Amino acid sequence: MKSYRKELWFNIPTRRAFVNITGQVAEALAESGVKEGLVLCNAMHITASVFINDDEGGLHHDYDQWLERLAPHEPVDRYRHNDTGEDNADAHLKRQVMGREVVVAVTGGKLDLGPWEQIFYGEFDGRRRKRALVKIIGE
Amino acid sequence: MKSYRKELWFNIPTRRAFVNITGQVAEALAESGVKEGLVLCNAMHITASVFINDDEGGLHHDYDQWLERLAPHEPVDRYRHNDTGEDNADAHLKRQVMGREVVVAVTGGKLDLGPWEQIFYGEFDGRRRKRALVKIIGE
Amino acid sequence: MKSYRKELWFNIPTRRAFVNITGQVAEALAESGVKEGLVLCNAMHITASVFINDDEGGLHHDYDQWLERLAPHEPVDRYRHNDTGEDNADAHLKRQVMGREVVVAVTGGKLDLGPWEQIFYGEFDGRRRKRALVKIIGE
Repeated sequence: MKSYRKELWFNIPTRRAFVNITGQVAEALAESGVKEGLVLCNAMHITASVFINDDEGGLHHDYDQWLERLAPHEPVDRYRHNDTGEDNADAHLKRQVMGREVVVAVTGGKLDLGPWEQIFYGEFDGRRRKRALVKIIGE
Repeated sequence: MKSYRKELWFNIPTRRAFVNITGQVAEALAESGVKEGLVLCNAMHITASVFINDDEGGLHHDYDQWLERLAPHEPVDRYRHNDTGEDNADAHLKRQVMGREVVVAVTGGKLDLGPWEQIFYGEFDGRRRKRALVKIIGE
Repeated sequence: MKSYRKELWFNIPTRRAFVNITGQVAEALAESGVKEGLVLCNAMHITASVFINDDEGGLHHDYDQWLERLAPHEPVDRYRHNDTGEDNADAHLKRQVMGREVVVAVTGGKLDLGPWEQIFYGEFDGRRRKRALVKIIGE
């Protein structure tokens, strides 16, 4: 069994953003030499997500508006977590809706994705250096 | 290490539905010959889910009502994604709540599920041919 | 390829609670002898979650309030699932938001977690014996 590990680093200039990382995950897979197996890709931070959906700007706008409606950033004092001096409680909630991780099949040395599946890093509390983990196992 | 891949195809006649696929996933596992390992089962489309919950019709009704309240289908022009000519932005949102994939342990050649765990394909934008992927790795 | 399986049992005295199980998962990993691979940890019950987030009491309070707003326990007769004699339909909904499972990388024999990542069992319908599964594969 082969295994491979790589960190992807981000420093998003805004509080929230979605970044297409499909190419970077595919690159890690090529580096790993794994032909059949599984790729785990997860946010290593608890106010960020890795998820799979469509690379369409209108949809990303809709996600942002929707998440803000489900778990508004303000007023920050509505969240007890923010009594610790943080202002990011909403980011911890938004991340649960969007998820921490994806597991993607590897078949014939490629990411075995459907035609519109793209992998995203979802940032909900940016403006600092943060990372996602790619771990690949297989043969 | 063994690996096995199978696609499950659906053509749901309604916009939304939940289909119990536990038997089909168990069949793929039997075909794979894997005794110890992991099964990944994921929607290959971004307006559908694979998730695990109870096979109880009342609950599925509750899920449908609840998801419609969290991310209503109409008015379709409330979503910027639908400016592209689609009317399925709500389906992209609903799928994030229900999730893209499940990973299930394989123990002694069987799906290692709790007593009420059943695997479902969740369709949120049906009336077309769509698929889920089963990928199994192990020994 | 090695594989290892362990059940973690809970009997939460309240309806809802979050329990940090990172130590128990790390212990299972040490028992497995796996150095490179993947850990799957999932609730075996459909009204409970395993998820990763912050071990901060204020945040757990916020999660509880937020989930209760998204999927209120009462009135119990608002849910058709509860016509079966259950009163836990809300728990099935809350669990979908928080997720069933986490997959964690194993690197150098350790859980490959970010600095604040902690693994939790999330109970939404307690006061009975329930379990989570830890399945580890790798080398």
